[in-house]
Amino acid sequence: MSEPLEELLGALSRLPGIGRRSAERIAFFLLAKPGEGKRLAEALAGLDRIGRCPQCGNFASDGLCSICRDPKRDGATLCVVARPWEIPHLERTGEYRGRYHVLGGLVSPSQDIGPEDLAVAGLVERVKAEGVREVILALEPKLEGDLTAMHLLRVLKPLGIAVSQLAHGIPVGRDLESADELTLGRALKGRTPL
Amino acid sequence: MSEPLEELLGALSRLPGIGRRSAERIAFFLLAKPGEGKRLAEALAGLDRIGRCPQCGNFASDGLCSICRDPKRDGATLCVVARPWEIPHLERTGEYRGRYHVLGGLVSPSQDIGPEDLAVAGLVERVKAEGVREVILALEPKLEGDLTAMHLLRVLKPLGIAVSQLAHGIPVGRDLESADELTLGRALKGRTPL
Ligand SMILES: [Zn+2]
Ligand SMILES: [Zn+2]
Repeated sequence: MSEPLEELLGALSRLPGIGRRSAERIAFFLLAKPGEGKRLAEALAGLDRIGRCPQCGNFASDGLCSICRDPKRDGATLCVVARPWEIPHLERTGEYRGRYHVLGGLVSPSQDIGPEDLAVAGLVERVKAEGVREVILALEPKLEGDLTAMHLLRVLKPLGIAVSQLAHGIPVGRDLESADELTLGRALKGRTPL
Repeated sequence: MSEPLEELLGALSRLPGIGRRSAERIAFFLLAKPGEGKRLAEALAGLDRIGRCPQCGNFASDGLCSICRDPKRDGATLCVVARPWEIPHLERTGEYRGRYHVLGGLVSPSQDIGPEDLAVAGLVERVKAEGVREVILALEPKLEGDLTAMHLLRVLKPLGIAVSQLAHGIPVGRDLESADELTLGRALKGRTPL
């Protein structure tokens, strides 16, 4: 195998979810369609231009992100996430029309990350400045997410706004046995009246 | 989402086996580790330097491919494949120490591809010039592979060399029921004495 091909296979194999076989499949596709390789290389060159939205912390390349810029999004609702890459998952549901706020992480005693290391002050400021009436916490249902939620509840409640969190429960279309105990516990606590 | 990020997600999603979610996973990995994006971009730039081995048709960047250059490979055995990307699969078995010959395709009446469109003359020439004693046909066990194999057998047999093909049969570790009829038929025909 040629050296540049080995380099390409090596670089592809380092990507998450890409094993040696997937790397080969992609490399041979790119060899067969040179235009696709050029397109990808140009897109990679654009990585340098991807920064953060100064308002919400989402990925953005020039000033505000597309969600903060969109006048049709409901400015009275903020969904709080730990990382910007969680936003596309929530967007895909098609259920949410508010804006976001990226904390930049979660409270973690073991990693010595406290609320002061997260974009909490900015969140409080936005709630006051933007007339936010509800904050939805979309944080992972584990220790760090819970600690973060507790802290946020403490600072947000005095502002007189609604604070909610995503419902946890049995994944849609899955049976009870397939849910782990933690999920099942959450599903019980969060049971909805019929 | 920012425009350069959308472009990157678009370019990644066009790769085989990469859906929108995998593209996001990869893009966010590259955003977190800019060095990996640079490495991949550089590797993609090397695509232009990947050509074909003038002897066997394998991918090569400068003259002969690494297999043709390797003096430890057995020059008396040639394995014939349709496409260069089939070579790594065979190499991975660790069972083969000979060299390769890439046909560039398969005989296909429906696509109007005849033996004259494939690197058959070059194969005959190599058998004569390189003292080849066995040619192994590693062609797909379908109509086109079989037509190609029949033609190759016709031109190679008169040279007084052994011609063989890969054994077909039940995949290792799979049960009989999981094999399709074609495979099962091949397994029956190619049964080995115990
Ligand atoms: Zn934003
Ligand atoms: Zn070669």
